[in-house]
Amino acid sequence: MKSKRITLIDVGSGTCETDTVITPASTGFNASGLDWSVQMVRLRGGVSDGVDIIRLHNGYLNLSIVPTRGMGIWKADCGRIPLKWDSPVLHPVHPSLVDQSRRGGIGWLDGFNELICRCGLGWHGAPGTDTQRDRDGNVVSEQFLPLHGRIANLAAHQVFVDIDDNGSIAVTGVVDETSVFGERLRLTSRLSTKADSSKFAINDTVTNMGGSPAEVEMLYHCNFGTPLLGEGAMLHTAAERIAPRDARAAEGMDHWETFSGPTSGYAEQVYFVAPISDDSGNGLAVLESPERQSAVALRFETATLPWFTLWKNTQAAEDGYCCGLEPSSSLPNNRQFEREQGRVITLDSAASIDFSLSFQVAESQEQTQALIDEVQQRQQQADRVTEANPTADLSP
Amino acid sequence: MKSKRITLIDVGSGTCETDTVITPASTGFNASGLDWSVQMVRLRGGVSDGVDIIRLHNGYLNLSIVPTRGMGIWKADCGRIPLKWDSPVLHPVHPSLVDQSRRGGIGWLDGFNELICRCGLGWHGAPGTDTQRDRDGNVVSEQFLPLHGRIANLAAHQVFVDIDDNGSIAVTGVVDETSVFGERLRLTSRLSTKADSSKFAINDTVTNMGGSPAEVEMLYHCNFGTPLLGEGAMLHTAAERIAPRDARAAEGMDHWETFSGPTSGYAEQVYFVAPISDDSGNGLAVLESPERQSAVALRFETATLPWFTLWKNTQAAEDGYCCGLEPSSSLPNNRQFEREQGRVITLDSAASIDFSLSFQVAESQEQTQALIDEVQQRQQQADRVTEANPTADLSP
Amino acid sequence: MKSKRITLIDVGSGTCETDTVITPASTGFNASGLDWSVQMVRLRGGVSDGVDIIRLHNGYLNLSIVPTRGMGIWKADCGRIPLKWDSPVLHPVHPSLVDQSRRGGIGWLDGFNELICRCGLGWHGAPGTDTQRDRDGNVVSEQFLPLHGRIANLAAHQVFVDIDDNGSIAVTGVVDETSVFGERLRLTSRLSTKADSSKFAINDTVTNMGGSPAEVEMLYHCNFGTPLLGEGAMLHTAAERIAPRDARAAEGMDHWETFSGPTSGYAEQVYFVAPISDDSGNGLAVLESPERQSAVALRFETATLPWFTLWKNTQAAEDGYCCGLEPSSSLPNNRQFEREQGRVITLDSAASIDFSLSFQVAESQEQTQALIDEVQQRQQQADRVTEANPTADLSP
Repeated sequence: MKSKRITLIDVGSGTCETDTVITPASTGFNASGLDWSVQMVRLRGGVSDGVDIIRLHNGYLNLSIVPTRGMGIWKADCGRIPLKWDSPVLHPVHPSLVDQSRRGGIGWLDGFNELICRCGLGWHGAPGTDTQRDRDGNVVSEQFLPLHGRIANLAAHQVFVDIDDNGSIAVTGVVDETSVFGERLRLTSRLSTKADSSKFAINDTVTNMGGSPAEVEMLYHCNFGTPLLGEGAMLHTAAERIAPRDARAAEGMDHWETFSGPTSGYAEQVYFVAPISDDSGNGLAVLESPERQSAVALRFETATLPWFTLWKNTQAAEDGYCCGLEPSSSLPNNRQFEREQGRVITLDSAASIDFSLSFQVAESQEQTQALIDEVQQRQQQADRVTEANPTADLSP
Repeated sequence: MKSKRITLIDVGSGTCETDTVITPASTGFNASGLDWSVQMVRLRGGVSDGVDIIRLHNGYLNLSIVPTRGMGIWKADCGRIPLKWDSPVLHPVHPSLVDQSRRGGIGWLDGFNELICRCGLGWHGAPGTDTQRDRDGNVVSEQFLPLHGRIANLAAHQVFVDIDDNGSIAVTGVVDETSVFGERLRLTSRLSTKADSSKFAINDTVTNMGGSPAEVEMLYHCNFGTPLLGEGAMLHTAAERIAPRDARAAEGMDHWETFSGPTSGYAEQVYFVAPISDDSGNGLAVLESPERQSAVALRFETATLPWFTLWKNTQAAEDGYCCGLEPSSSLPNNRQFEREQGRVITLDSAASIDFSLSFQVAESQEQTQALIDEVQQRQQQADRVTEANPTADLSP
Repeated sequence: MKSKRITLIDVGSGTCETDTVITPASTGFNASGLDWSVQMVRLRGGVSDGVDIIRLHNGYLNLSIVPTRGMGIWKADCGRIPLKWDSPVLHPVHPSLVDQSRRGGIGWLDGFNELICRCGLGWHGAPGTDTQRDRDGNVVSEQFLPLHGRIANLAAHQVFVDIDDNGSIAVTGVVDETSVFGERLRLTSRLSTKADSSKFAINDTVTNMGGSPAEVEMLYHCNFGTPLLGEGAMLHTAAERIAPRDARAAEGMDHWETFSGPTSGYAEQVYFVAPISDDSGNGLAVLESPERQSAVALRFETATLPWFTLWKNTQAAEDGYCCGLEPSSSLPNNRQFEREQGRVITLDSAASIDFSLSFQVAESQEQTQALIDEVQQRQQQADRVTEANPTADLSP
């Protein structure tokens, strides 16, 4: 197999290729006869000024990857189906304009409009103070952790594109979440697809580059609005256990898998799910569109992403009607609670952990039903416990 | 009438025209025979790096508009009269370098040097916590609001220039003040003038793009230093009522309309004014220069800008000797107090409100006197109440 | 003597020369026959996007000066000896991405990786609240001061290069630390060297541009890692008095001048030193490498830099193994304490103060021993008091 690597960004060597268009013709990898391309452009003006976007077109699927925002995926479309939501924040926001400590620590929301964004690496979840004590109860460390961590507002210092003559196209970015006297975590994120495919995968490695053990939390905030989401859209997922996060979520427990249409004043409802894995170790969540003709499926390796959160945010269209399908290493509670529950990862110095998930779009009723069947078969492997109320091990 | 629109910034389509010079020759609109021009340049270096400036020259008046800073006007000159003040902050500051929460919430001042800048859209005024309670006294929301709101540190994502064959030149910018789970307000700001005129106007529309009602406060911080301001300069304004903001302002109540020269250690004095409108619904404030040979006049629609604040800040020249003439929708107190006094605007979903003001420069004693006469005639329409001390409805 | 000035950055006139290479050939100053050069480049990508670096090569010494980060020196090398440390923060960080209030006020560390960076101008040292009271104990002002002040995260608005036919090469930058209703301090920083020299000097002037007196604190954070630092490396300095900052530093008092190798989990140890000056008024500190074959010497004018702090930070290599040699005007404690101890400078309006220091690299055992001899001779001029424990006048 022949392959080729093209560097788009490398701070060390001064590389920042915002003009190059990578195509079959430019690379000589045109065996497939398809019209794929990868191009990085720099946005100008507004709060997007200076944000780089990598437009990956595999011949069928379009993905907009944002190296400036932690290798998140701003939006995508697959054939005739757009994968996105309509955030009140219209364009990608440069991290320098996001003050995470604003509004009591939810300033992260000022830049939130991606289809897929990572929450992590050192922590994710609700803002709050994480206090660590020793056995005698003395405070060892105390840090205010704003919402969802730093990674979505850190830029990749290295980005390259790998192609091969099997039609594989991959974009890899390296992002450091680091400080002196702080965590020193590195994300190496690989997004891959094949020419003409309706699937793409994310393979991430988080490495502790520091000299002592470090904590890691990771959550993939995958957000969908219209047209996949709509009144009557459904989530299908095989689960061992489902629990509402709080009283508000408990109100909707009897129809937690069904979505409302845009509802002005709707207050978010969040459900915590312990997924069932298949033989290859993957969890599966399917969002079926209201008209049952299309769906998107997420598969995620439960070895390192053992939790799944459903974020129902079916507020008014103007306010960002969407739902979040969120595989994660721990639940999006404050890290102190997650640590107490044993869900925070600790990486030794120089150790790494991998996170893998993939996305597939169903564009017909048949394809959609096949995904739902897969969920149902999987559910038969285990009983499902549905908690009526928040439980002490999952909700603080 | 023929007209033409030229886009300078449009994030969505990737437009950012920092090279184009718009002139009679480039557009074909040269009937007037004047040498007007509009050009956007990008600043480089220092804290101004990445700030765009639109230089509008109407053949007589020069205006520097800053799309990167909420469509504020950095400085201007009209014939031989500069309209500006000499802030300690020398150059336009990129919003990414302004940490509004700094210094107890007055970090906004790190970027403050404009002739005209907007304070708003969700709030303006002194920093502090805005606590809202329900009828039972329970806290419904609580947010720390830093000084003067977000709008001056948000960049326009769309800017275009409109010209027509009557000699009209207008620059329109669209700025979003928005967040997920936050306000979703849009400013559409139109600055217009005519070829060879000594006047310009601002017509702003604020729209609630969100799905539920939203609060709006707007204040136009119009700041003048030398040469219009100097020892013996005077404010002329027709008012129904004038009140000092606090004890410090009350000290100077007997000469509140007269300005001192630069005074080291001077502590600011602020006066709240309820203006008298003319038949067309406009308030009027005139700043007369010390030598009585020139003046600047502000006219503002009192339907939506029913208040006027005078900010006397005649400190040392080195520290930013200036005065602020500030038409506004509410007074620059914390929003909680303004809400309690019924002065905060509530916009329904999709509703808009317009704010209009215009500026005129008098360049001779005759023109100056004509403006003062206009103020005096208007004052005869109503009695003037001058409060000796701060009053409970205007000062917290 | 003929000389020439080339402007690299000037915000006012729109100058930002990122393409020019200044050389003997380009300037006509080629009498020395050496191959020196000065070039400014702009970094792209990652957290370095938009950072300008001035690469000065004097024919022997290489220096990377960062106008975007307060004219700090990122790294250098002298012949075969690199002058640098390996911070967990790999590349120069754009100031817009440094939120100094983060992590309880130590966000400054997110951008800390320089060989030499200034801490100041209004304050430096540990984060904390500076409360000023009048004689009756009433609070006059209260401000939270984050770690090490603003200057390292402010960009120069003016930078020029001066060369002359004696082989002198100097880079001067002007940086304003200013705000409305705040300090108005200007740093004019001149870094100079000679063609083919192994020395360079920093001559800084801080001016109070404001209308009333202003406080100034300055500290030069000069940081060295491998190869100059290593197990057995030694600090040599002539001192009247040495004191540990705290109990942790007191633990290591008997070997405070000797460095350990990289030690995982090492907690920093800080020593305060009152240096002895030579006849020309300079203090001297020498860092001798473990193999005794090389050293770096700092000389600093004690008239305005009467203190020297040793920061031992010999943690794991991965976490940023280094030591800091820090001449300063006051000690790196909170400003309130330093003011109470009479160590904070007050500058009248329009007054200036100069700070000077110079660096010299020894590349042989002979050169190294000559520096150590110089320290020892100087020590004979005064007794040395070594405090076993923190003292009330130096540690809060």
